[in-house]
Amino acid sequence: MEFQTKIGKSEPDKIFVHGYNLTEDLIGNITLADMAFLGAKHRKPTEKESKMLNALLVAICEHGFTPSSISTRLTYLGAPESVQSAVAAGLLGAGTVYLGAMEYVAEMLHHAFEKYGEGYPIEELASLIIQERKENNQQLPGFGHPIHKPEDPRTGKLFEIAEDLGFYGKNSKLLVEIHRQFCEQKGKTITLNAVGAIGAIMADMEIDYRVVKSFAVASRAVGLVAHIVEEIELGRKNSVGQEIFDYIEHHTDYKGKVETQKS
Amino acid sequence: MEFQTKIGKSEPDKIFVHGYNLTEDLIGNITLADMAFLGAKHRKPTEKESKMLNALLVAICEHGFTPSSISTRLTYLGAPESVQSAVAAGLLGAGTVYLGAMEYVAEMLHHAFEKYGEGYPIEELASLIIQERKENNQQLPGFGHPIHKPEDPRTGKLFEIAEDLGFYGKNSKLLVEIHRQFCEQKGKTITLNAVGAIGAIMADMEIDYRVVKSFAVASRAVGLVAHIVEEIELGRKNSVGQEIFDYIEHHTDYKGKVETQKS
Amino acid sequence: MEFQTKIGKSEPDKIFVHGYNLTEDLIGNITLADMAFLGAKHRKPTEKESKMLNALLVAICEHGFTPSSISTRLTYLGAPESVQSAVAAGLLGAGTVYLGAMEYVAEMLHHAFEKYGEGYPIEELASLIIQERKENNQQLPGFGHPIHKPEDPRTGKLFEIAEDLGFYGKNSKLLVEIHRQFCEQKGKTITLNAVGAIGAIMADMEIDYRVVKSFAVASRAVGLVAHIVEEIELGRKNSVGQEIFDYIEHHTDYKGKVETQKS
Amino acid sequence: MEFQTKIGKSEPDKIFVHGYNLTEDLIGNITLADMAFLGAKHRKPTEKESKMLNALLVAICEHGFTPSSISTRLTYLGAPESVQSAVAAGLLGAGTVYLGAMEYVAEMLHHAFEKYGEGYPIEELASLIIQERKENNQQLPGFGHPIHKPEDPRTGKLFEIAEDLGFYGKNSKLLVEIHRQFCEQKGKTITLNAVGAIGAIMADMEIDYRVVKSFAVASRAVGLVAHIVEEIELGRKNSVGQEIFDYIEHHTDYKGKVETQKS
Repeated sequence: MEFQTKIGKSEPDKIFVHGYNLTEDLIGNITLADMAFLGAKHRKPTEKESKMLNALLVAICEHGFTPSSISTRLTYLGAPESVQSAVAAGLLGAGTVYLGAMEYVAEMLHHAFEKYGEGYPIEELASLIIQERKENNQQLPGFGHPIHKPEDPRTGKLFEIAEDLGFYGKNSKLLVEIHRQFCEQKGKTITLNAVGAIGAIMADMEIDYRVVKSFAVASRAVGLVAHIVEEIELGRKNSVGQEIFDYIEHHTDYKGKVETQKS
Repeated sequence: MEFQTKIGKSEPDKIFVHGYNLTEDLIGNITLADMAFLGAKHRKPTEKESKMLNALLVAICEHGFTPSSISTRLTYLGAPESVQSAVAAGLLGAGTVYLGAMEYVAEMLHHAFEKYGEGYPIEELASLIIQERKENNQQLPGFGHPIHKPEDPRTGKLFEIAEDLGFYGKNSKLLVEIHRQFCEQKGKTITLNAVGAIGAIMADMEIDYRVVKSFAVASRAVGLVAHIVEEIELGRKNSVGQEIFDYIEHHTDYKGKVETQKS
Repeated sequence: MEFQTKIGKSEPDKIFVHGYNLTEDLIGNITLADMAFLGAKHRKPTEKESKMLNALLVAICEHGFTPSSISTRLTYLGAPESVQSAVAAGLLGAGTVYLGAMEYVAEMLHHAFEKYGEGYPIEELASLIIQERKENNQQLPGFGHPIHKPEDPRTGKLFEIAEDLGFYGKNSKLLVEIHRQFCEQKGKTITLNAVGAIGAIMADMEIDYRVVKSFAVASRAVGLVAHIVEEIELGRKNSVGQEIFDYIEHHTDYKGKVETQKS
Repeated sequence: MEFQTKIGKSEPDKIFVHGYNLTEDLIGNITLADMAFLGAKHRKPTEKESKMLNALLVAICEHGFTPSSISTRLTYLGAPESVQSAVAAGLLGAGTVYLGAMEYVAEMLHHAFEKYGEGYPIEELASLIIQERKENNQQLPGFGHPIHKPEDPRTGKLFEIAEDLGFYGKNSKLLVEIHRQFCEQKGKTITLNAVGAIGAIMADMEIDYRVVKSFAVASRAVGLVAHIVEEIELGRKNSVGQEIFDYIEHHTDYKGKVETQKS
C-alpha cells in the first residue's frame, strides 16, 4: 500500500509543497492565505488572486463575540495549557448556522450555471433560481443581516475590489441580480451580506464550492488568535471567559424539582 | 455587567476591528496573517513585519502526513458534512509534541533576558542557559530533526529573511550561539530546526512568547485546508482516509482472548 | 437576565440534579448511563429501562479500529498532555457516516407513526415507508453491514432483551417488517444492523429521536477510554498511533511536481 | 506491519471485546461504565467494582453551568447538525483547571507509596507529603471548593459507599489523613472535595493514575447529553446558548479605538 499525495515531500535538504520548493519559491514570496489557495488550486495565485483572497479572508476573519469566539474563551479558561483546544472549540461552533451561507451561495451559483448553461441571460437565470427556491421551500442564502441594514459595508467594498482585480464575474453578477429581483418582489431592501458576496467572488475565482467553507474555517482560526491573546492579557481573574462564567453562575434560575424523591 | 473587548465593534454601516475601520483600513490593505498580528500587537504590522510574519507562517503551515493531518482526513471520512470538525480534529493533535518547541524556544529566550538582563555578553548567556537546562534535566528546545540533517533548509532561509528585514536580533543571536556551543559540546552538528528559528524570530518581532503557539495553530488550520481538498478531489472511495482505514482494518492482529467467559 | 435550567442546582450541603438529591437519590443508586436517561426524560429510569439502556449503550460502545478511534490515538500521540482532546477528536469523526443511521432509523419510525397514525396495519405501513423512500431516492437506514452478514449478532440479542423487558414495541416491529419486505423485494437477506435495532428500541423506550445520536456519542466517549489506555500501556514508541504514523510516513508516494518553479 | 490490539475483533457472527464475547458475555450483563473498566483493567469488574465505579462516575457526571457545558450549548447553537461537535467542544474545556485535580490526587498518592513503601505509618507518610509539597511550592490537590463548605456532600457519601464495598483502602486513608493534618495546620476546616475523594477511591480500586482523567472525561460526555437535550427542548430561540449570546452581544463595551487610521 502506498498512500498518494500531491501535497508535500521532504528530503534532507529540500522540501516540496504543492510542487514548489518551499524555501526557494514559497517562504518570503507568498502570503499565508496563498497556502490555502495552493491547496485548493495546486498552483500559486497570481498577484491579483492573492490580493483578492487576502481581502476576502480578512473580511470574515473577525466577528467579535460570537458563540464561536465565546467557546474559545471558555475553553481557554478551562484548559489554558492547550491553546489548540481553545481554537478547535471555537471552530466547532462555526457550523451551518454561522458559516454555512458562504458555501450555500457558491453551491447555488455553481448549480445554476451547471443546470442552465452559461449562455442564459442573467435576468432570466436569476428569476429561475428564485422561483426554484420558492417551489422547493428553500431560503435564498446570502441575504439579510441583524446589524448591517440596509447594506453590509463589506459587500460593496469586496465587489469594488473584485471589479478592480477582474474577479467580478458571472457569479457575482448573478447573485447581484438575484438580490435585485428579490428586493423588488419583497418591496424593500434586504441586505446582500458579506458572506454572500464572498461566496460569489470565490466562485468567480474558480474555487470549488465544496472547498469554500474550509477557507472560511481557516480564516476564523486566524481570527480566534486575537480572542486568546485578549484573555491572556486580561489575566485569568479578569478574563472575559471568567466574567461570563461568573455572570451565568450568579444568574441561573433553577426550575427543576428539589424534593428528595426516594426511589 | 459589561464585557469589555478591544477587538471589535459593529455599527449598521461601519465595522471596527482592533481599532481600525474594517472596510477603509483593512480589507484590501492587509493580509490574513496580519489579522493575527493585529490581535497580538493591537496595531497593523509594518510592511516588513507583515513580510516576516507571512514568511514564518508559510514555513510551518504544511508538514505532509502527520498525526494531525491524518486525523483531519479520518475525521473528514467519518463526518464529511462538517469540515470544521476535520480541521478541529487536526488541530487537537498539534499539542506539545508537535508544536510545543516553538513556544518553549520563545519562552527560554524570554526568560534568559529577563533573568540575566540585556547587557550580558551573548556567549556567556548561552553558556548559562545550557548549564541551567542541564542542571534541571531539561532538554534544549529547537534542536534536532528526524529528516533535515545536518541542516533544516528553512532555518537558513528564515534567518536570511530576518536579517534582510531587520528582525535578526538578540533572541535569534542567542539561539544561534546556544546551538553553536551545544554542537561543540556534543562534538557533532545537531540541526537547529525551523520551529526553533521561528520561536526566536517571533521573539525578535516582540511577539509575546505566550502567544507564539496560537500563531502556529492558526497557520496549521490554513495548512489543513489542502488535506481536506485532496480528500474531496480523490473522492470518498479513493481518499487517503479510506485507504488508511482499510489498511489498518486488514492488518490488525488481535492479541486478546477469544474464549467465552461466562460471568 | 436569568438563565433557566432544570438540570442542576448546588447548595453548600446539597446538590440537586434533574430534580433529585444527588447524594441521597443518585450516587450509589443509578448507573452512569442512567444519567443520560435522566437528562433525556427528566426522571430516573425504571430498573427495566436502565437494563435496556445499558445493554444498548454497551452494544455500540466499542468498534475496534475505526476512523474515530484511530484519530483518538493519533491525537494522543501529538498531545499526550490532553486526553480530553484525544477523546474529542475521536468523537468528531463520529459523524453522519458512522453514527447517523441510528438517528435516521429513529426519525424514520417517528415520522411514519406521526404521518400515518398509530392504527395503521404494520405490513401496509412498512410498505408505504419503503415506497416513499424509493420515490424520494432515499436509502433505508439501518440495513447492511460490511462484516456481519447475513446477520448482525447484536441485533438478535438486543431484540431478545427488548422483548424480555417489554421494549419490543411498535417501532421495533415496524423496522423488522420493513426489513422483511425489503429483503423479499431484493430477493436476498440484507443485514438488519445493530445501529438500526438500537434506533428502533430507543424509539420504543420513548426517547426523542433528536436525542438518540447524543446517546451514541456519549457511549463512544466511554469506549474511547480503552484506546487511550492501550496507547498508555504500549508506551509512546510502541503505540499504535506511532506505528500508524511510521507506516504512513514510509509508504507515501509523492505525486506532485518537484522542479523548482521560480515565480 | 500488523497493528496489535487487545480491544476487539469482529467475525461475521461473533464480536470479541476485551476478550469477551460481546453478545454472550457483555450486552445485558454489564453497565456502560463497566466498558471503561474493561478497557482499563482488561477484565470485567466484580459486582462491587461495578457499583463503586458507577457511583464515582455518577458523582462527577453533571456540574450545571460550567465553562465546559456552556461551550457545548454555544457550539450546538452554531452547529446544531453536529451534536458530536457540541459534546467535543464541552470536553475540550475540561482541562487541567476543572478535571486535573482528580488525576493529581491519584498521582500524588501513587508516588507516595512508590517512594516511601507500603509499610510506612500513615500519619508520618501524610506529614512527609505535606512537607514535600510545601518545599516544592506545590499545591495539595483535592482540597477546597467554592460552594461546598466546609464539607462536600459527595465526599462523605462516596467514602461511605467505598467502605461498604471494600474500597476504602490505603489511598483513601492517606488522603483523609493528609486532609486532617492540613486543616490542623491551617487552623480551619478546608473542604476535602469530591474530585479528591474520587481520585483516592480510584487508586484504591487499582486503576492506573494515568487513566483516571479519561474516566472523568467519559463521564462528562454522558453528562453533556442533558445540556444538549435541554437546548433541543427549549428550541433555538429560547435556548440558553441563544440567551447567553444575546446577553453578551448587548452588554459588550468596546474599549478599542474607533477613528479611521489611514495607513
